[in-house]
Amino acid sequence: MADPRFFRPPTPLTLAEIARASGAVLAEEAHAGLRIQNVAPLDTAAEHTLSFFDNSKYLNSFKHSHAAACFVREKYRTYAPSSMALLVTEQPYHAYAKATQLLYPPPAIKPSIHKSAIIAASARVAPSAQIDAGVVIGEGCVIGEGCHIGANSVIGDGVEIGSGTVVGALCNLTHCLIGSGVILHRGVHIGQDGFGFAMGKTHIKVPQLGRVIIEDHVEIGAGTTIDRGTAPDTVIGAGTKIDNLVQIGHNVRIGKGCIIVSQAGVSGSTTMGDGVVIAGQAGIAGHLTIGNYAKIAAKSGLMHDVPEGAEYGGYPAVAVKDWHRQTISIQKLVKKS
Amino acid sequence: MADPRFFRPPTPLTLAEIARASGAVLAEEAHAGLRIQNVAPLDTAAEHTLSFFDNSKYLNSFKHSHAAACFVREKYRTYAPSSMALLVTEQPYHAYAKATQLLYPPPAIKPSIHKSAIIAASARVAPSAQIDAGVVIGEGCVIGEGCHIGANSVIGDGVEIGSGTVVGALCNLTHCLIGSGVILHRGVHIGQDGFGFAMGKTHIKVPQLGRVIIEDHVEIGAGTTIDRGTAPDTVIGAGTKIDNLVQIGHNVRIGKGCIIVSQAGVSGSTTMGDGVVIAGQAGIAGHLTIGNYAKIAAKSGLMHDVPEGAEYGGYPAVAVKDWHRQTISIQKLVKKS
Amino acid sequence: MADPRFFRPPTPLTLAEIARASGAVLAEEAHAGLRIQNVAPLDTAAEHTLSFFDNSKYLNSFKHSHAAACFVREKYRTYAPSSMALLVTEQPYHAYAKATQLLYPPPAIKPSIHKSAIIAASARVAPSAQIDAGVVIGEGCVIGEGCHIGANSVIGDGVEIGSGTVVGALCNLTHCLIGSGVILHRGVHIGQDGFGFAMGKTHIKVPQLGRVIIEDHVEIGAGTTIDRGTAPDTVIGAGTKIDNLVQIGHNVRIGKGCIIVSQAGVSGSTTMGDGVVIAGQAGIAGHLTIGNYAKIAAKSGLMHDVPEGAEYGGYPAVAVKDWHRQTISIQKLVKKS
Repeated sequence: MADPRFFRPPTPLTLAEIARASGAVLAEEAHAGLRIQNVAPLDTAAEHTLSFFDNSKYLNSFKHSHAAACFVREKYRTYAPSSMALLVTEQPYHAYAKATQLLYPPPAIKPSIHKSAIIAASARVAPSAQIDAGVVIGEGCVIGEGCHIGANSVIGDGVEIGSGTVVGALCNLTHCLIGSGVILHRGVHIGQDGFGFAMGKTHIKVPQLGRVIIEDHVEIGAGTTIDRGTAPDTVIGAGTKIDNLVQIGHNVRIGKGCIIVSQAGVSGSTTMGDGVVIAGQAGIAGHLTIGNYAKIAAKSGLMHDVPEGAEYGGYPAVAVKDWHRQTISIQKLVKKS
Repeated sequence: MADPRFFRPPTPLTLAEIARASGAVLAEEAHAGLRIQNVAPLDTAAEHTLSFFDNSKYLNSFKHSHAAACFVREKYRTYAPSSMALLVTEQPYHAYAKATQLLYPPPAIKPSIHKSAIIAASARVAPSAQIDAGVVIGEGCVIGEGCHIGANSVIGDGVEIGSGTVVGALCNLTHCLIGSGVILHRGVHIGQDGFGFAMGKTHIKVPQLGRVIIEDHVEIGAGTTIDRGTAPDTVIGAGTKIDNLVQIGHNVRIGKGCIIVSQAGVSGSTTMGDGVVIAGQAGIAGHLTIGNYAKIAAKSGLMHDVPEGAEYGGYPAVAVKDWHRQTISIQKLVKKS
Repeated sequence: MADPRFFRPPTPLTLAEIARASGAVLAEEAHAGLRIQNVAPLDTAAEHTLSFFDNSKYLNSFKHSHAAACFVREKYRTYAPSSMALLVTEQPYHAYAKATQLLYPPPAIKPSIHKSAIIAASARVAPSAQIDAGVVIGEGCVIGEGCHIGANSVIGDGVEIGSGTVVGALCNLTHCLIGSGVILHRGVHIGQDGFGFAMGKTHIKVPQLGRVIIEDHVEIGAGTTIDRGTAPDTVIGAGTKIDNLVQIGHNVRIGKGCIIVSQAGVSGSTTMGDGVVIAGQAGIAGHLTIGNYAKIAAKSGLMHDVPEGAEYGGYPAVAVKDWHRQTISIQKLVKKS
């Protein structure tokens, strides 16, 4: 059970309710009224607890699990212990994620403006929003319905935030438009000047006149920095998830549903399509084009365009297949020498 | 036009005013009174808009641009469309940067101390400074004329800041002396203990008794961390520009006019000369000496000293020429195997 | 002498007091009353100043040092200048660290709650704690004896902190239990959701139901982010020291007395034993096991388990010996081609 100091105890749900919310099918109608009080992996789940079986590697754990109920693919249901209630779905982990969201919903927004918050006269804050202690909101800002702005965050003049967006503590947002259903974790910095200079003996600052556009349902991790555009905008497409301590340079355009893992960096003016995955600590040079659904391996250094669906890795990055061949060739070379 | 929610509309300027400020020469005196209202790249610039042509790759864009005026090198002026007013200079991009600064000056400082700021009795804040909401300023601090301290920033005891320096929101400065005309973006952390331990079964903390010295006209990006020295100081030389999420270790000495790109790290006690460029995600080992105007490639791992003017790259880093030869040799090796 | 704007002048101590505190042996009893007022390296130390000689590379500096007193190993004491008082120990640097701590103790905690701090009704703050301006402390929090919470930090509901722990300015702690004698530098973010999604066309968020456990005497650098566990916890073992801008993923378990250097990243569910060293910018893949006292070289990319005591480096990381052989083989290959 999640620590009650930090999580509200889950509201018990019937399997029928869980099946409905997750899109899974109850194997036996007799289990419809079974009450679920918690979720856990196969090996620690016990009574009243829901689990999932999504990877055949864990077949043995599935066979011997004490979970009261479990999401499972059709083809594996015959391996289940006889006492286990089954929820059949071709996406057990997705269904489990949805059921867990249902049992452990995010804390409810408490519509309020803390008395220590400083809100400019011309800012418009929706009555259903929660503004925590020490928050500073600038002139002309728009904070939508059901938003939550965490303590001591600073929202600069003119920033607009859609509805149902959560901004963690200690964020600073300027020169940006943020969509709805967005999650910004704590310490996120959006909208500062990009790193633009006319270089020389003295480096002359080039004013950065663009914005950052964060589309709906984006999530951005703690300590991540996103620079505003030079004149066009920096854009993070809908549903993209960005991890902690990532750097996104000016004029970068990221498509929809991308994944960018911790400590990766994307240099200025690079464009990526939809569904791209950039693994941890990867570095992407500027002015590149990365096609839809391309994957860039952890820690690689990408200096060239990547076609749709391709997987690249290494330093300098090449097609992953070639990178593995490089690694093997070098190992052989060492043995020979 | 820059989004008026975030940028003040530019004040129109005559070409004569722009020529004077940028050091360019007006090709035809008849254009002296032409009014410029905006800046844009060659391909999007239209009436009343100023552009620049600095890279022969864009010659075609220059030939067909609708920009009202353009910075151009002497040798390219004959390619200009007949309707275009020309500002001749050997540094078109530098001139453009200066003109853009003129059209879009940074927001004016509003001399004021927000009523929610907490300022120690012995701190001296210049009357022309702007101190935003929630700022905390410690005992003995000196904040110079025309400084701007962003909301919720925390300035520790004894810190001194010159004139015209901008500190972004949510910065923490301690044990440091900051020059004039410096820009610290949001979330910058300067002056914490360096990572110094007498290591063993128990790691014993070595008190860090130095400071951080930030010279004039330095710019430091969001989320960057600079540790104070152990006994000597950590020093960032005048005019050096540091990007986001960079780590500078204790006792590092960086010369004047250097460029350090995002997510790079410089380990303790390394010294670099003037005009050094450290590209993104590069890692520099400790106790190294890097000569003036040396360049370290993106993502390289530098473990040895670098002579003046040299270019190094790779992991471990070698002269860039040798790194490229390594890359080619490995590719050939793969083909053979 | 450390800058008095930032450091309290050291209280002079006798060599006898220093010997007692550091565990060193005074070579000549006659020196017991000698008063020490400062510490410095061998080459800059002068009268009333204590130094240390721990690396034979500096033998010449030792021979000619003007330090009044010096920590030295038994076997080197005969090389000392005749005027120098000697403190004999087999761990000169450790002894020096302890003596320096004695001369320059951390600033004393001033028990107080700043009037601008916002403390929830159900939070319990020990009377000996110091809570600085703008701090926000949530419901049910426990802040132990002698803790110091830096300005504008935000402590979420239910967080418990032991005694004598220092939290820097602008930290955000949630879903975590922090031990005693811990140092968190500024801008540390602990307890946010791990990066957990059931990925697909739409990425579905998996609620993160675990915590972060920070054991006693851990130190964590500026801007570092530590995600809470998915269901088990993320754990940082006692005495472990983590540098700036490090990322620790969900469910990671770090043993006791480990060292993790700046900008390193440890991916989810990796477990490391005691005394492990992860050097700067290294990236550790998820679900790995790293044995006690293993060392991972700077900037390496580790994708496999590492046995106890082993040293790994490179990208992809291999045993350090093999990595060096790879480097040499590639250099030879280039020469041949």
